[in-house]
Amino acid sequence: MVDVPQLVEQARQGRPRAVARLISLVEGAAPELREVMATLAPLTGGAYVVGLTGSPGVGKSTTTSALVTAYRKVGKRVGVLAVDPSSPFSGGALLGDRVRMSEHASDPGVYIRSMATRGHLGGLAWAAPQAIRVLDAAGCDVILVETVGVGQSEVEIASQADTSVVLLAPGMGDGIQAAKAGILEIGDVYVVNKADRDGADATARELNHMLGLGESRAPGDWRPPIVKTVAARGEGIDEVVEALEKHRAWMEERGVLARRRLARAAREVETIAVTALRSRIGDLSGDRHLDALAERIVAGDTDPYRAADELVEGLTNGA
Amino acid sequence: MVDVPQLVEQARQGRPRAVARLISLVEGAAPELREVMATLAPLTGGAYVVGLTGSPGVGKSTTTSALVTAYRKVGKRVGVLAVDPSSPFSGGALLGDRVRMSEHASDPGVYIRSMATRGHLGGLAWAAPQAIRVLDAAGCDVILVETVGVGQSEVEIASQADTSVVLLAPGMGDGIQAAKAGILEIGDVYVVNKADRDGADATARELNHMLGLGESRAPGDWRPPIVKTVAARGEGIDEVVEALEKHRAWMEERGVLARRRLARAAREVETIAVTALRSRIGDLSGDRHLDALAERIVAGDTDPYRAADELVEGLTNGA
Repeated sequence: MVDVPQLVEQARQGRPRAVARLISLVEGAAPELREVMATLAPLTGGAYVVGLTGSPGVGKSTTTSALVTAYRKVGKRVGVLAVDPSSPFSGGALLGDRVRMSEHASDPGVYIRSMATRGHLGGLAWAAPQAIRVLDAAGCDVILVETVGVGQSEVEIASQADTSVVLLAPGMGDGIQAAKAGILEIGDVYVVNKADRDGADATARELNHMLGLGESRAPGDWRPPIVKTVAARGEGIDEVVEALEKHRAWMEERGVLARRRLARAAREVETIAVTALRSRIGDLSGDRHLDALAERIVAGDTDPYRAADELVEGLTNGA
Repeated sequence: MVDVPQLVEQARQGRPRAVARLISLVEGAAPELREVMATLAPLTGGAYVVGLTGSPGVGKSTTTSALVTAYRKVGKRVGVLAVDPSSPFSGGALLGDRVRMSEHASDPGVYIRSMATRGHLGGLAWAAPQAIRVLDAAGCDVILVETVGVGQSEVEIASQADTSVVLLAPGMGDGIQAAKAGILEIGDVYVVNKADRDGADATARELNHMLGLGESRAPGDWRPPIVKTVAARGEGIDEVVEALEKHRAWMEERGVLARRRLARAAREVETIAVTALRSRIGDLSGDRHLDALAERIVAGDTDPYRAADELVEGLTNGA
């Protein structure tokens, strides 16, 4: 048996292996999952969660790494959660990037964790918030959640951060791709990385236009800034941090941060509840109830809606 | 009130407006939805459902259009369901494509329907199978479901067809993109379109390698063919149709078709059941139960798992 309270205590003392162990427990839906979450509950809420998303190749990992450096300089403890299959954190990138990240890997003030994007019960939408809770309870001041903006669940994770950063790079037709992927509207801060390349100004202008940033807003409304960076050289990173802090201050001033966290918690509960119900359906499937319904549908004896009614009745009567 | 039996009868007589009306009813989750599905149930199962997916720009719509022409030549009634935001059917493409499609729009043996990819209750995974049922009951011999291979739900739709066609084009780094999007493994037939361009042979070879098509298989196993096409000129389309018919015959011979349809029906029931349960959670949210749980989580008084237990208890006790 795992001694959960001891593990949590060690995590709070800053022991990386305890943090890693706890994340593995919640990620793997271990029997101890519920005890872990219950123990963590009163210890969370201190971290500022920043989501970073964008298409592959815009430089998310490099930017994340540069932000880690910036926050470490001012003594913040930083957690990194990479749910991007192309991220060096999660193991899919070039050696150069990997080497660059390894500097943080040996820093005791930085926790780095990657998550697989496939094969999880209920997907990332379910596991990522739990990993964030572990990092939060372990005393991280800032948690950077890096997701690739391609799948619905990744976009959801990014949009549920306290502050969402959307990254673009010049010359990738990125504005249109981002719009299609549904990530364009979720940014609180926009970063045009690789700004030393041709077309950076055009990308920023296009973005400014697509977001309607030139239009007037009600006083006090948040106007998402567009920051140009060359993350590989650390250029513009201080400006990104400044933009993040401004957004955080704005949210706190207006009660937006509290509302976002409530919405995030509600969403999290809903996801867990739906996953639980789905797994009960899976159990029914095991005893051939679902298969029998499918046979009747294919035979034309019933339709999917009546069959679903039967299934739900079975569930809600404790079958 | 809508006279559902009359509408279904008209659809079976081949009246396009009745088909369109029925799809609108199921797509919009109209009050008549259940009556429609119940009426259609005994009339479905006759259509062969082909999914076509691939990244934007590979020529899915042009290929779909060419396949419609080929099937019409042999007198088949064809349904087209476009769930691709970049498809001319669903309104996002160039005028040239749109004009090219309009030839089929006036053919009474062809039904064309587009579906929005966002904003639906439960998403496409929920609505598309119902629209397929309408086209099936209306007497379509072949239903072509065109989806863009970017989102999870689109991939799911494509993978739930009787036969899945994955399209690629040369010189787009498409193999890697397709692999990342998770569409590479779902193909029963692969099409390298725009085969008159440089790199078509390389794309086919890369694909052959990635899929391990050169390796030996057990006798009787399906070996997905790679067909090269120039859909805009109709080249290779007969070979695609031939590959589809071969796959269909192979599936029927081995009972694979029946198994796939059972799995599809089971999945459909599950999706509808989960959507129904999710909407009950939404109702609970309306009465502030979910909000109250979220407040307790943010305050650290409970954790998301205990909160989800409460929510599920509320549901399954008929709250």
